[in-house]
Amino acid sequence: MEKVFASIITIGDELLIGQTIDTNSSWIGRELNAVGVWVKRRVAVGDMWDDIWEALDEESQSSQIILITGGLGPTADDITKPLLSAYFGGRLVVDEGALQNVKNIFRSLNRPMLDRNLAQATVPEGCTVIPNKRGTAPGMLFRKNERIFISMPGVPHEMKGMMTDSVIPLLQKEFIMPGISHRVLMTAGVGESFLAEMIKEFEEALPKHVKLAYLPNYGMVRLRLTATGANKIQLDQELDLFFGRLQELVKDYLVSNTGESLEIIVGRILKSRNQTLATAESCTGGYIAHLITTIPGSSQYFKGSVVSYANEVKENILHVSAATLLHEGAVSEETVRQMVRGALDVMGTDFAVATSGIMGPDGGTADKPVGTVWVAVGNVNKTVAQKFKFRFDRMRNIELTATNALNLLRKFILEH
Amino acid sequence: MEKVFASIITIGDELLIGQTIDTNSSWIGRELNAVGVWVKRRVAVGDMWDDIWEALDEESQSSQIILITGGLGPTADDITKPLLSAYFGGRLVVDEGALQNVKNIFRSLNRPMLDRNLAQATVPEGCTVIPNKRGTAPGMLFRKNERIFISMPGVPHEMKGMMTDSVIPLLQKEFIMPGISHRVLMTAGVGESFLAEMIKEFEEALPKHVKLAYLPNYGMVRLRLTATGANKIQLDQELDLFFGRLQELVKDYLVSNTGESLEIIVGRILKSRNQTLATAESCTGGYIAHLITTIPGSSQYFKGSVVSYANEVKENILHVSAATLLHEGAVSEETVRQMVRGALDVMGTDFAVATSGIMGPDGGTADKPVGTVWVAVGNVNKTVAQKFKFRFDRMRNIELTATNALNLLRKFILEH
Repeated sequence: MEKVFASIITIGDELLIGQTIDTNSSWIGRELNAVGVWVKRRVAVGDMWDDIWEALDEESQSSQIILITGGLGPTADDITKPLLSAYFGGRLVVDEGALQNVKNIFRSLNRPMLDRNLAQATVPEGCTVIPNKRGTAPGMLFRKNERIFISMPGVPHEMKGMMTDSVIPLLQKEFIMPGISHRVLMTAGVGESFLAEMIKEFEEALPKHVKLAYLPNYGMVRLRLTATGANKIQLDQELDLFFGRLQELVKDYLVSNTGESLEIIVGRILKSRNQTLATAESCTGGYIAHLITTIPGSSQYFKGSVVSYANEVKENILHVSAATLLHEGAVSEETVRQMVRGALDVMGTDFAVATSGIMGPDGGTADKPVGTVWVAVGNVNKTVAQKFKFRFDRMRNIELTATNALNLLRKFILEH
Repeated sequence: MEKVFASIITIGDELLIGQTIDTNSSWIGRELNAVGVWVKRRVAVGDMWDDIWEALDEESQSSQIILITGGLGPTADDITKPLLSAYFGGRLVVDEGALQNVKNIFRSLNRPMLDRNLAQATVPEGCTVIPNKRGTAPGMLFRKNERIFISMPGVPHEMKGMMTDSVIPLLQKEFIMPGISHRVLMTAGVGESFLAEMIKEFEEALPKHVKLAYLPNYGMVRLRLTATGANKIQLDQELDLFFGRLQELVKDYLVSNTGESLEIIVGRILKSRNQTLATAESCTGGYIAHLITTIPGSSQYFKGSVVSYANEVKENILHVSAATLLHEGAVSEETVRQMVRGALDVMGTDFAVATSGIMGPDGGTADKPVGTVWVAVGNVNKTVAQKFKFRFDRMRNIELTATNALNLLRKFILEH
């Protein structure tokens, strides 16, 4: 079976001058991959006629499917629609369905409509309109030289709705997809090189259609096995065997045998045990609570957090002793231990996790340089604490602290 | 003066199958732009020999500078180095400086070194080594057909260090850069189309070397003016005039005349007035506290947050009345007003902001559907509250709530 290749073209100067991080391509890649389409290339170009034109030419040489996002807004810098009209031929005409959609949206928002909003409903003659349930700019499908081109708005939630509702089902009808299967596991506490040594023989013995990838991130390394082939069921069985062996090889460092984040894993464990969690955060400033509460249903096991950035909040709400703060300092083992006890006490949860550290760029001392972090986790009977030393920038230090705190918490919960 | 163009090639299957969001390209684009290099294209390709080779060929046709990130790790899926060695010619040889760097890093980490770590110090003969102060993989510079190719590791903080310390200074020596200037302002409370109508004449009268872009995001729209030309000083003066006029035109909706985020703006106002802030967060789950504490120096004005996800935490720590929670519910005007008062009280700050809402996907009722949010801000004398209705997914609702809460807070602080 032939592989089905796709290219993703994202349009907008903001992508090139660094004002926007392109999250669309990543999401599209994941969705395509799940149904057996392999993304061959992702290209970002500016709001420039020739550059967009050239990208369309180039990508249609290597891919059967070309997905385009961006440049469909109602303002003058949005040139994608006239360009597509010139590239594929056909005047811009009003699409009745799209027009009705624009009118409905403005009616529901109770906002007056401008001519430029109505112009959103025009599309190149001969394209197939893809409905946009979440916004005014319709999607457009074109066919040329046995290639499929689909243009979608750059607004992430509009694009996502369109992909899920229309584009993916349409592609699945159009192509016979080969199988692509992935298995991902996560390790912590071991470097990429050491992992590679541990699984060297395993890696070298993998058949050609199975690939192994190392994805290091924030002190953890994910390992991904990918297999491609005609028979998806057979592929999955084969991959499960390899994956089982891989888990066995790295078992001392295994955090999970899914690619899921620690906040999902911790949440699932707590839910299954019907237990609750609170956080007491100094240096992470609420980031751990934020990670936990991004998960739907987290209110079942997460009661809350005291973000005690100032020492007086540590004292007044978490009841850390003034003497400890004075003599040991806010970044100390005794402080995070007391923060855990305070959080358990005032929020009445089964478990609590606490952080205190110096995230930088300023605030370090000879004794406690930037990157010094104390983390503690505990329940009413026991508290364990661990010191970390990170050496990165502020945001990375916050993320590393959160990751390590969640991993320490995961281990503690499983042991108690 | 001729424009200097760059292309960015990022390498790695994880970029194409959606396991990683490419933040490197965006950062590189911003840094290049600041010194006058225009990023023409960004291309992401997988760990495939032919695809990388083709990307090098293609990008060197349109750009004088080709920056490459990724694929330099110590594991078998990292094929960039042998490929560069084949592409530019030259055997792989040990670089003494790079070897010393690898040894120093392992010594400071107190970890044993493996052969594959030592192999990190090999580079294609004839390349210029760019030191990596933060990791083991050296950067490499090649010249071919009057093009400059620079390969860097994909680990963001290593790449950033290399760009700042070596690559940017090197490019500035190599090329005479034209001037590129940007001005960005941020608006809130007005749609993209309405803004476009308000500034239509202004936009149409702009000279050809000045471009206007609309960047909508989370209920706010940023407007960016970009000018290019030979004389940077003249350009800045000219752009300041246009920018002044633009600010005047949108003044009713102007949030700031910088591209800065609301948490930076709020922080600066608080610092200048020597005042303090606390947050009391239910539905935002600590996200507002997180945004505020990502800013270095935020401990000067931010005392902390009570993330009161469970009602008992609202009652016990923030002293929201049980009767209010029972009769009005957690998502109500009275609850967020009491949360503000509670936060001011227990954390002793000048200002507080509170949020409570239903973020989805579950938890909505006919009365209070998913996306219903109450926000309140206040000081000891006065509290104001506002209701919002969002219609997106959980993460987007959290972000929209945080943005609107910070904007409400900004306005309240400036008025009191």
